[in-house]
Amino acid sequence: MKKIINNPENYVKEMLEGIYIAHPDLVTYTADDVHCLIAAKKVEGKVGIATGGGSGHLPLFLGYVGEGMLDACSVGDVFQSPSAEQMHAVTKAIDSGAGVLYIYGNYNGDIFNFDMAAEMADFEDDIKVLSVVAGDDVASAGPSAPGEKSTRRGVAGIFFVYKCAGSAAANMMSLDEVKRVAEKASANVRTMGVALTPCIVPRVGKPGFSIADNEMEIGMGIHGETGIRHGKLESADQITDEMLEKIISDVPYTAGDEVDVLINGLGATTLDEQYIVTRRVSKNLADKGIKVHHFYVGEYATSLEMAGMSISMLKLDDELKALMEKPANTPFFKQI
Amino acid sequence: MKKIINNPENYVKEMLEGIYIAHPDLVTYTADDVHCLIAAKKVEGKVGIATGGGSGHLPLFLGYVGEGMLDACSVGDVFQSPSAEQMHAVTKAIDSGAGVLYIYGNYNGDIFNFDMAAEMADFEDDIKVLSVVAGDDVASAGPSAPGEKSTRRGVAGIFFVYKCAGSAAANMMSLDEVKRVAEKASANVRTMGVALTPCIVPRVGKPGFSIADNEMEIGMGIHGETGIRHGKLESADQITDEMLEKIISDVPYTAGDEVDVLINGLGATTLDEQYIVTRRVSKNLADKGIKVHHFYVGEYATSLEMAGMSISMLKLDDELKALMEKPANTPFFKQI
Repeated sequence: MKKIINNPENYVKEMLEGIYIAHPDLVTYTADDVHCLIAAKKVEGKVGIATGGGSGHLPLFLGYVGEGMLDACSVGDVFQSPSAEQMHAVTKAIDSGAGVLYIYGNYNGDIFNFDMAAEMADFEDDIKVLSVVAGDDVASAGPSAPGEKSTRRGVAGIFFVYKCAGSAAANMMSLDEVKRVAEKASANVRTMGVALTPCIVPRVGKPGFSIADNEMEIGMGIHGETGIRHGKLESADQITDEMLEKIISDVPYTAGDEVDVLINGLGATTLDEQYIVTRRVSKNLADKGIKVHHFYVGEYATSLEMAGMSISMLKLDDELKALMEKPANTPFFKQI
Repeated sequence: MKKIINNPENYVKEMLEGIYIAHPDLVTYTADDVHCLIAAKKVEGKVGIATGGGSGHLPLFLGYVGEGMLDACSVGDVFQSPSAEQMHAVTKAIDSGAGVLYIYGNYNGDIFNFDMAAEMADFEDDIKVLSVVAGDDVASAGPSAPGEKSTRRGVAGIFFVYKCAGSAAANMMSLDEVKRVAEKASANVRTMGVALTPCIVPRVGKPGFSIADNEMEIGMGIHGETGIRHGKLESADQITDEMLEKIISDVPYTAGDEVDVLINGLGATTLDEQYIVTRRVSKNLADKGIKVHHFYVGEYATSLEMAGMSISMLKLDDELKALMEKPANTPFFKQI
């Protein structure tokens, strides 16, 4: 395991301590627990937005707490949900009377704990909490009967949900309105990923799965969940086209649509490669009459040091476009 | 070679095309050559700053062209210098009468070509060009007799030189003054790196060297140049302390000094690990009475997908501190 770390037991705690040292102007923590990260500044009367999830995905999740985006993130161990108590602690810290919206990815541990935290905040503190469970992954969207819970996982596209909801809250919209915006963004974002190598959870010390030297896995999840196709490594253009086809037919996105696009590196894949993919996405979408409003390129949601990338698309209307364009200032995302 | 690319011959061209697609508001190119990158906006009367160098180091070098930093970057093939003609082309494009400053790393190919480009700009176009050759690497600073050329390579610390000089130019200082600032920053910045894995140049298709599974190389250069110590992989705290000792004794930095610190990922190393290093740097410097003004953490200068990191320190005075704090807006570096 080639990592620059100390005792793996202290991995998350030491990482968090580094975050607070590097970004004291933007983030701090509450309840004497470094896992309970909150924005350094509280805006009175604003709806609070909290997220949470396992570590190992930086800048997801905690990196989007700051001005114009999220107000809190409870942080779990690597690939593990934080506890309901930690979620409850940040909820109390960020509420200023306008209520709190939870936005988090569709994973069972997170759902269970966030639901419990919402009940605690309601019963113990009389804080109104609403939730949006984001699921943007195309690969895991199995068939589900009407009314049945979706199996669609939350991956990099949650960035778009955070940004739209964060801007809505910064515009002082009500809790119901911020929830409506988050749900609209979530319904219009889709993501596909491809993995080239596994990653190593520090406490485990070895990869949980393997991908052969000349192979890739299309649709793999950000914790190494099985994808939809395992095969020979293809060219950037071929991979991009296959992923786009699956994304586009899902929402669906059609000629005349305007979209924001996120090209996301999973860890070890270079920015050069991400821009080579950007070039192909641009050509492919232009051929289909889909207009790109803005490209976001870089590491937005990683799987430790996994090699691979994902493509996310958000279908825009006038409201979402204006919310996406609003400035933001977080440790990891700055928009001027 | 697990990369998401097309024909390796087109690697740099396709990467650059992706950059122009993603960032049309900030950068464009001149002379009908995508390797001749310039800022989208020209500020009349401002000193122009140009850099250049090989690809494979994103966001170095071209990623710092934009508002408040650099005005141009000529881009070579992976780990190769751009040509004198390309450097000359961007020089003509960015000059607005106040002259042009070249800031680039201490590599023979770059020095040869930049010197030739400066002569071409002088003789053919009557543009005054001055140069600052940045060398911040502690590991490659062999003994050199007075007046002899330094062997000290330019690595991630050049970011600080770009930022200080870019702010000085944005403040409409004269060419001589911007050069003075760049030289002062360069004289006060030092960097040490550590590599855990090799990287693969796309055209070559296999690593140029190897590092055993349980080993690291302290002081390795960003093209795989041999470092100063090869040994067993140690803990993050041990590695950090060894690197800091070499950095601190070089300038030297002493108790009472104030510094900016850059913790830089070389490619595959996670942000988590970079923050674990940040934590130790903070403690180590506090113990020595050296005050950290600001931490910069992330991938600022990479070696393709190499695992490893570097630590850079800039000793501040009031002038450099104010220049470092000025806002900037480039594709890869945004400071609000």
